[in-house]
Amino acid sequence: MRKLLLFLYVFALAVFAEAQVITSPDKNLTLTFELKANGAPSYQLTYKRKPVIKPSALGLETKDAGSLMTGFTVTNTAQKTVNDTWEPILGEQKTIRNNYNELLVTLSQKTPKDRYIQIRFRLFNDGLGFRYEFPKQKELNYFIIKEENTEFNLAGDHKIFWIPGDYDTNEYPYTTSKVSEIPGLQKKATVQISAQTPIKNPSVQTPSMMKSADGLYINIHEAGLINYPAMHLNVDAKNLKMSAHLTPDAVGNKGYIQTDAQSPWRTIVVSDKATEILASKLILNLNEPTKYQDVSWIKPVKYIGVWWEYFVAGKSSWGYSTETNTKLTDDFTKYTPNKRHGATTENVKRHIDFAAAHGFDAVLVEGWNIGWEDWFGNWKEEVFDFVTPYPDFNVKELQAYAASKGVKIMMHHETSSSATNYERRLDKAFQFMVDNGYNAVKTGYVGPIIPRGEHHDGQWMVNHYIHVAKTAADYKIMVNSHEAVRPTGLNRTFPNWIAQESARGTEFEAMGGLTPEHTTILPFTRLMGGPMDFTPGIFQTDLSYYSTGHGNNVNTTLVKQLAYYVTMYSPLQMAADLPENYLRFPDAFQFIKDVALDWDATYVLEAEPGDYITTARKAKGKNEWYVGGVTDENPRTATVSFSFLPKGKQYLATIYADGADASYDKKPQSYTVQKVVVTSKSVLKQRLASGGGLAVSIKEASNNDLKGLKKI
Amino acid sequence: MRKLLLFLYVFALAVFAEAQVITSPDKNLTLTFELKANGAPSYQLTYKRKPVIKPSALGLETKDAGSLMTGFTVTNTAQKTVNDTWEPILGEQKTIRNNYNELLVTLSQKTPKDRYIQIRFRLFNDGLGFRYEFPKQKELNYFIIKEENTEFNLAGDHKIFWIPGDYDTNEYPYTTSKVSEIPGLQKKATVQISAQTPIKNPSVQTPSMMKSADGLYINIHEAGLINYPAMHLNVDAKNLKMSAHLTPDAVGNKGYIQTDAQSPWRTIVVSDKATEILASKLILNLNEPTKYQDVSWIKPVKYIGVWWEYFVAGKSSWGYSTETNTKLTDDFTKYTPNKRHGATTENVKRHIDFAAAHGFDAVLVEGWNIGWEDWFGNWKEEVFDFVTPYPDFNVKELQAYAASKGVKIMMHHETSSSATNYERRLDKAFQFMVDNGYNAVKTGYVGPIIPRGEHHDGQWMVNHYIHVAKTAADYKIMVNSHEAVRPTGLNRTFPNWIAQESARGTEFEAMGGLTPEHTTILPFTRLMGGPMDFTPGIFQTDLSYYSTGHGNNVNTTLVKQLAYYVTMYSPLQMAADLPENYLRFPDAFQFIKDVALDWDATYVLEAEPGDYITTARKAKGKNEWYVGGVTDENPRTATVSFSFLPKGKQYLATIYADGADASYDKKPQSYTVQKVVVTSKSVLKQRLASGGGLAVSIKEASNNDLKGLKKI
Repeated sequence: MRKLLLFLYVFALAVFAEAQVITSPDKNLTLTFELKANGAPSYQLTYKRKPVIKPSALGLETKDAGSLMTGFTVTNTAQKTVNDTWEPILGEQKTIRNNYNELLVTLSQKTPKDRYIQIRFRLFNDGLGFRYEFPKQKELNYFIIKEENTEFNLAGDHKIFWIPGDYDTNEYPYTTSKVSEIPGLQKKATVQISAQTPIKNPSVQTPSMMKSADGLYINIHEAGLINYPAMHLNVDAKNLKMSAHLTPDAVGNKGYIQTDAQSPWRTIVVSDKATEILASKLILNLNEPTKYQDVSWIKPVKYIGVWWEYFVAGKSSWGYSTETNTKLTDDFTKYTPNKRHGATTENVKRHIDFAAAHGFDAVLVEGWNIGWEDWFGNWKEEVFDFVTPYPDFNVKELQAYAASKGVKIMMHHETSSSATNYERRLDKAFQFMVDNGYNAVKTGYVGPIIPRGEHHDGQWMVNHYIHVAKTAADYKIMVNSHEAVRPTGLNRTFPNWIAQESARGTEFEAMGGLTPEHTTILPFTRLMGGPMDFTPGIFQTDLSYYSTGHGNNVNTTLVKQLAYYVTMYSPLQMAADLPENYLRFPDAFQFIKDVALDWDATYVLEAEPGDYITTARKAKGKNEWYVGGVTDENPRTATVSFSFLPKGKQYLATIYADGADASYDKKPQSYTVQKVVVTSKSVLKQRLASGGGLAVSIKEASNNDLKGLKKI
Repeated sequence: MRKLLLFLYVFALAVFAEAQVITSPDKNLTLTFELKANGAPSYQLTYKRKPVIKPSALGLETKDAGSLMTGFTVTNTAQKTVNDTWEPILGEQKTIRNNYNELLVTLSQKTPKDRYIQIRFRLFNDGLGFRYEFPKQKELNYFIIKEENTEFNLAGDHKIFWIPGDYDTNEYPYTTSKVSEIPGLQKKATVQISAQTPIKNPSVQTPSMMKSADGLYINIHEAGLINYPAMHLNVDAKNLKMSAHLTPDAVGNKGYIQTDAQSPWRTIVVSDKATEILASKLILNLNEPTKYQDVSWIKPVKYIGVWWEYFVAGKSSWGYSTETNTKLTDDFTKYTPNKRHGATTENVKRHIDFAAAHGFDAVLVEGWNIGWEDWFGNWKEEVFDFVTPYPDFNVKELQAYAASKGVKIMMHHETSSSATNYERRLDKAFQFMVDNGYNAVKTGYVGPIIPRGEHHDGQWMVNHYIHVAKTAADYKIMVNSHEAVRPTGLNRTFPNWIAQESARGTEFEAMGGLTPEHTTILPFTRLMGGPMDFTPGIFQTDLSYYSTGHGNNVNTTLVKQLAYYVTMYSPLQMAADLPENYLRFPDAFQFIKDVALDWDATYVLEAEPGDYITTARKAKGKNEWYVGGVTDENPRTATVSFSFLPKGKQYLATIYADGADASYDKKPQSYTVQKVVVTSKSVLKQRLASGGGLAVSIKEASNNDLKGLKKI
């Protein structure tokens, strides 16, 4: 798999006073490392000679082992070049090129002790990754991080798409502003969310997407977040300087390090083309290949669920009874049913029937297990046991029924953020899944964390999520985590951690709505780290449709919901609406049924964060292509060049477009479906409505099928 | 088993203004409950008309649900009398009488909400137990405790045997002083201990043993500590008032309550005879009977171990290699052995041989599993995996060897206080034990707790210890916990939690020494809560004996070490010295080999805390009796009346006595062993040396065996 084209080491054994410089393979990026007079390490980055990161400090303060900020000398440097490829288990493209020039700097201190650390820089054509490495050595074995002081000294007052720093949630809406405006907007940006711990000082979360006045796109994030707290970014708006702000633990410490150890990679993806930010595989490249021996059980999942009805239908509840104080030891058959319970055997069977009829892999069922009546708001530890169904959910009967229909039921493990309770019960819970035919679990972390005082983004929880993913792999179970720390490309290392939420997703459409621009930003921010279980596919976007008179709107057109299956990459995709709504729009539904989840190739055709994205992808192992286009609140004409198609052949394209009178707020369900003939020379110019989208499926077809169709 | 002799309910449905009064069955104790003018509940206790507890406040402050201190009215009271008996699985006597008068007071509030709590008082002949009960109700479901404000308003400036309040350790030496002197002595009393969190204000731990100027013995502790933090006692030295001080969690909260719930029982054992304090079964009576169906596998354990050599032999270490930075993923066979490792296959086999030859049930082996090289001091989470042996410890070979000799190996699970790591691995660890023939585990909690910020005595850890005990029961494993929260009689409910350390035990004899009075206090304090794994039996008390020139002394005579097997009740007892030392004193060793661990009856013959204890016990199901006597630094004459023996029959008594020239500091190994004939009319007056003791075994014997022996 790993094909090493060029491998070059340059050892320099002397002590270095001068700066170290490497360039990207295409020479566009230049990374300069140097020590300041006080022995403080510093780096800077340029793109086509424009400054991206001005000279910025590197290093850490420890709580118990002195400073790792100053007093260094460079005792060694090494360079190498790597240019190889690898194949993801599931992904946006079949083969990923991994091409970088590396600089490894060894920094030695004499005081307080004779010790050294290393900083490894990898410069790709699409950006920079660097990390701290702490080799095992006599005088550096254990230490506690007080703060990592990595700086990102910006070259201008960039436009930035940001959510405020918070130790416990990443479900904020995006604010677009200048970097200098962040302090003034911080309070407004910090909308209320359950279990939030906003950072007091001006700060933003990563992935942080910026655009300079002269058109440079800069994305700061991290890769390979393992055994380390998640990084937020302090914002010094006056000096346009960002700096690392690690998530603390229950006693205020920011990380427990035992050498050998490494920090996660700090990543800066850079391009003068927005499309290349989206196409970047830098973060995946910096993650470690999986060590799983058998990955045959890790497969894409297209699913429906007993889920959206909890948000809109007004009649369904996760909980089974009228009780408001329940314990896991209670006999729930003695409680009075509330008659609104969603996860009944009958309702799940109905969903299984629909899934089987329309080719879905799985049915997610939330609310199947005891404890939902008082699961939230009490910082309760023993909230769920993950193995005891409600009296009206028959596990064995549904196992047999689902199996007979060739459909999987997707397990739901809401932890209520009681991670200790979940870990204690994890093996039994996964064994229960195996025993009852489940192969995927949606996990949830709503509420403040137990261990109390810990945070969603802290080192302990970072390790917890990985522990869950690795343990799940022992049982051949795929994990789709919600409310967990935002991803950093770990789906390469733990490919059964198939998707995450970790951002403001579709559920918020039922709780005030997402802005139309939200999903033109997410691929530039949240999705830089990995696949998102955004749960698209809402056809009934006007929620007042429901008898209860729900006052919210899903702020998209129907077609934009289709486009998400292409623009929002994930190998796990939900068709989130109620089954009955799909039956009302069978022609549009066909796109969801058709669209692939795993890809041979991806072509980001046009993109601007906050405005629009148009992406085409080739289905894995098939001559099928799918195109998705989205716009913000502004109508726009998308241009789809079909040059990604093989030359000299005609294909059948089905174009799902907003109707001429469509708009997200007035006429969301106005759409057209048109079949046309396309070739690699075709170009489609298609109008997208306000809050609208475009979806196209392209397949091979016989001449007979193509006969009479318009050719574009 | 439960024989209810009298069961009487008195319901009083009106609203009560007057005080409620109940007396103990023998009328010696009187409990008065009343509401103050502001609706604040209060209680007082007298013994033979002398005040024991002067009017003292009751109630709790919550963090999120207002005060449960004032504004109450009494809306109901109920009284009943219980007089029955029960049989402990293992214990100091075959049958325990449970005889009390109960008062249940219902206290209702109108503000902040319409709700009620209850206080249940149980007045036994030997003292009072009371607790708060929080029934499930509309307006009281969840709350967080800010502090429990139960007061113990003392009737005088009593003499008190105390250790300072501390959230993380109970291994302090005892200080004896007046209550009023506690603040001045607090600093000196707070000696250095690994992982300590002393309470800043004057405070003491429970069990707290006091003696009034007029000779009343008062012991304050708690019973049935489940899902609640351990209680310390604030000391108001000026007003001679003690009050509850619960152990906080990582964020400063003192308990998460979901109704139905109860606090542990607050216990006040009272008598004008010190012997009756030791004989009290009040704390066990207040604990719930076990729910275990099968208890046949819970048996007394007499054991030796690869343990004391780590403290004194100077050549042994828990760790295997010379590394100081190890991870569980390391290959330890690649490390350089330090050649001092104690838990080798060979050394364990030698211990198994000794155990088999001398009738011991088990051999404890510490240091068998990887991780000891850097297990302590780094607040490391993944410190042990509990399943991977060092390269020189052959699990399977030792399993077969031990089985062939009829000896069990006792597992050791040092957690390094990383409770999360232990819980995560618990099932696999216990399954490993079952698979390899282990049926008992010594657990350890050295160091600061993980979850970080939690404490040994907090609610989370209280639940952890119980989780471990209950999970162990699923695998039919007995648990002997060290450094856990001090016991509160839960060995009744979880009888496989067979013993605990939770006090300053024998290991401290090798680290500065215990005072000679220490073990005349422990039965009045620590052991009130349950059996202690004190690890007695050190014959080589002068530790300079070892080639390394160990500078410490075990501050007892050899005979006092024998006496401990009787005076320090535990169904699990270690013979802690090195096997080779027992072979040097075979006649004295015979007592350890003979002494029983489970009893039909116990007779506390004479006792004074801080001075002396003489106790006799009848072996369970056998006509064998054992007597132990201990004194402090003062030589003393113990008086043993053998009136506990059946009348009219002669028995063979073997008297193990300090030699005439014996003393703990100068001549600890001077002793005599004498066989005599005793009857129920015999009285032995035996001199105990400074720091000395007395041990007697009494058995049936043929007239031939008794012939020629002196009769006393």
